[in-house]
Amino acid sequence: MTGATDHAGLIVLGFDECMQLVAGSTVGRIGFVTSGEVEILPVNHLVDGTTIAFRTLYGSKLGAAAQNAAVSFEVDGYDDAEGSGWSVLVKGRAEVVTDRALLARLERKGLRTYVTSVPRPQWVLIRPEAVTGRRVPEGG
Amino acid sequence: MTGATDHAGLIVLGFDECMQLVAGSTVGRIGFVTSGEVEILPVNHLVDGTTIAFRTLYGSKLGAAAQNAAVSFEVDGYDDAEGSGWSVLVKGRAEVVTDRALLARLERKGLRTYVTSVPRPQWVLIRPEAVTGRRVPEGG
Repeated sequence: MTGATDHAGLIVLGFDECMQLVAGSTVGRIGFVTSGEVEILPVNHLVDGTTIAFRTLYGSKLGAAAQNAAVSFEVDGYDDAEGSGWSVLVKGRAEVVTDRALLARLERKGLRTYVTSVPRPQWVLIRPEAVTGRRVPEGG
Repeated sequence: MTGATDHAGLIVLGFDECMQLVAGSTVGRIGFVTSGEVEILPVNHLVDGTTIAFRTLYGSKLGAAAQNAAVSFEVDGYDDAEGSGWSVLVKGRAEVVTDRALLARLERKGLRTYVTSVPRPQWVLIRPEAVTGRRVPEGG
């Protein structure tokens, strides 16, 4: 696959390819600002239509950021031996899910989380406002 | 290995273990704020003592953030089959390296970057001010 490259020599990915990469990843990273500092926290997520959903604890830093805050969500993949890699960055607003029908649908989708010893009762959505992605060209 | 767990049920990692994980990773993610939005960009990095170094282009978003700005740097690793994972977050200030002796030392260390078609002449350091890490306990 070839495409336009940016000033850094990376291939620019389209929206559909970006969202497929998000949906195909089990771990993403939420970036948000709290107390003037950038936090980056890994989460297990799923994709529902074009929105990204994950679960948090009430009262956590991430839970606070989920209150209709601007957040970024990143996924990437790379092969160290081949020197290949890609990344996708989604910017949008986070919101806590309160709609019962939506909650039921998300529960049915069965998000798999690595940490199961602590319940994460709060579902959070990110509605993408900007989606960008880049891939390292073959041969660098 | 066992240790204290946080409110989210994750094992808290010590400073030395965090820095070993940073040094053992070939890809990390820089988080910074530009125009009020959080950017998260993967970089190839190396560790020099307790500072993290990577290369950028002049004039790029990341290059601009490297001008003595507050940044965060994240590395993580996970095994999807086992449901195991860890992450480390370093907060600090970025600065462009101008000291010739330091530049020579960084060049000698031989950072391997995935993208080689575009030169990245600018070395940037992050001096850690806060380093935190978490690991998913065995069995979640």
